[in-house]
Amino acid sequence: MSIGHVAIIGLGLIGGSVGLAIQRFLPGVVTSGHDADPDVRRRATELGLVAQMHDTAAEAVAGADLVILCVPVGAMGAAAAAMLPGLRPDTIISDVGGSKVTVTQALQAALPGRCIIPAHPVAGTENSGPEAGFATLFQQRWCIVTPPADAPADKVAELVALWEALGALVECMDAAHHDMVLAVTSHIPHLIAYTIVGTASDLEQVTRSEVIKFSAGGFRDFTRIAASDPTMWRDVFLNNRDAVLGMLDTFLTDLALMREAIRAGDGQTMFDLFTRTRSVRRSIVAFGQDDARPDFGRSDHGKGG
Amino acid sequence: MSIGHVAIIGLGLIGGSVGLAIQRFLPGVVTSGHDADPDVRRRATELGLVAQMHDTAAEAVAGADLVILCVPVGAMGAAAAAMLPGLRPDTIISDVGGSKVTVTQALQAALPGRCIIPAHPVAGTENSGPEAGFATLFQQRWCIVTPPADAPADKVAELVALWEALGALVECMDAAHHDMVLAVTSHIPHLIAYTIVGTASDLEQVTRSEVIKFSAGGFRDFTRIAASDPTMWRDVFLNNRDAVLGMLDTFLTDLALMREAIRAGDGQTMFDLFTRTRSVRRSIVAFGQDDARPDFGRSDHGKGG
Repeated sequence: MSIGHVAIIGLGLIGGSVGLAIQRFLPGVVTSGHDADPDVRRRATELGLVAQMHDTAAEAVAGADLVILCVPVGAMGAAAAAMLPGLRPDTIISDVGGSKVTVTQALQAALPGRCIIPAHPVAGTENSGPEAGFATLFQQRWCIVTPPADAPADKVAELVALWEALGALVECMDAAHHDMVLAVTSHIPHLIAYTIVGTASDLEQVTRSEVIKFSAGGFRDFTRIAASDPTMWRDVFLNNRDAVLGMLDTFLTDLALMREAIRAGDGQTMFDLFTRTRSVRRSIVAFGQDDARPDFGRSDHGKGG
Repeated sequence: MSIGHVAIIGLGLIGGSVGLAIQRFLPGVVTSGHDADPDVRRRATELGLVAQMHDTAAEAVAGADLVILCVPVGAMGAAAAAMLPGLRPDTIISDVGGSKVTVTQALQAALPGRCIIPAHPVAGTENSGPEAGFATLFQQRWCIVTPPADAPADKVAELVALWEALGALVECMDAAHHDMVLAVTSHIPHLIAYTIVGTASDLEQVTRSEVIKFSAGGFRDFTRIAASDPTMWRDVFLNNRDAVLGMLDTFLTDLALMREAIRAGDGQTMFDLFTRTRSVRRSIVAFGQDDARPDFGRSDHGKGG
């Protein structure tokens, strides 16, 4: 791999994990970094998320072979503009944003003529901030790379090799398809989870204390997702609007069918759906994308049966 | 505790766990059991889920101080009728069903004049069947007891003491309130999860393989819930129709507001909701109803950071 220096802009959960993963799995690669928040810079320095911390983005990217922007998708354009004065002309610019069409546009507008190869590691936890990062976050997780049509093949190969070195499985696709896939596998699940947790908090008939006590019946799973970073998710929905709205309407159509089945007492329609969905879970476990143990192997079931 | 013999009818995840928990935490109590399926009886016997297995429900309940019906809520009436010939007049009849108004009615209709005290341990995993049971399932989980107005206080106290001995926290409420609380903490989350997993499986624009690969972005959490037992859940929706439809419509109203926020690019409305929902997660973890570790402590993050 000819990438010898990676600059990371934004040192939250993902940026911090990239820094730690490079230092662990590619110890010969130099890491430098910057975060717009001085407090985050201080904490990231203490945690050793990157080898060299800088007070400006332009200083952080100086000399880098690859820059990875790890800021909310709505902040990509400004972050790119801020680092431009320090950027070498041949540096690869990538990111980790959860939507790709508008991010690609924003980067191309801020950095005309540069080598921009957006990417999205499909990994994370509900935690955020520099303390949330860890080196193994990307192990066995997929990273989707969305090279624009004119991206040089050798540069794409470099970026793919980097993610593979961090433990990720890599797939390339175009940005619009990425946004459609992630709308269903990530954005709609988050929107639903945020909404139902909000609904449950506002009920008159059921107290908040009851919702919390009896959450083990399923609700608590949704609260984990609904604890994700608010800024990151606001930006995702603002930036992947069309795919999210299209997928949401498909879901709402299906939900209306289930509502009618419940209203009409149509047990067969319910049973057919509930049987079919089991096999999706089995496939996800079989393909190594989730824990096979019951209840995700939560610690409260780790006491022995 | 004056309960010296518990009969368990239905030996799947919950019935099997009750049997194992009684044998572990109340070793002086006799357990007997029956399941309508001969194959389940055979497997449950091999697993030792109860001390005495019987070929009929009437034989299983003979001499029992307490019978716990652990069958899908739609099967409660028939299961109660089947055991009636063997039932002592003073035996407490309870159950573990996820809806309580219609179950109470079905039990009262099948067993007129008997001491019926329905209950619902809010615990489980996505697995089902006799092999899925384990003795610690109810530790630190809530069990809701819904005594009818005329239930004798001493009998209610006996049932509460049994669940506490199995590790559960117990709360009493009326059946209608239970059904409202569980509609939001369990039934709507399951309905949504089943529906979105169905939606994702049927898309033309996104392949099933892509949905599985990229499920770590949030979708995989929903597939766990959508792998729950189809018969059990069909019966819950058939039996808690009004509370589920009412709560579903509240959720749909809130979801329509979020849809409009996305359509209009109203980031502030999104940010406000996404910030508010974080605190619900913190409360659930603080009250011991979920794992505090990121990502539920899933094993793929247990490799060390």
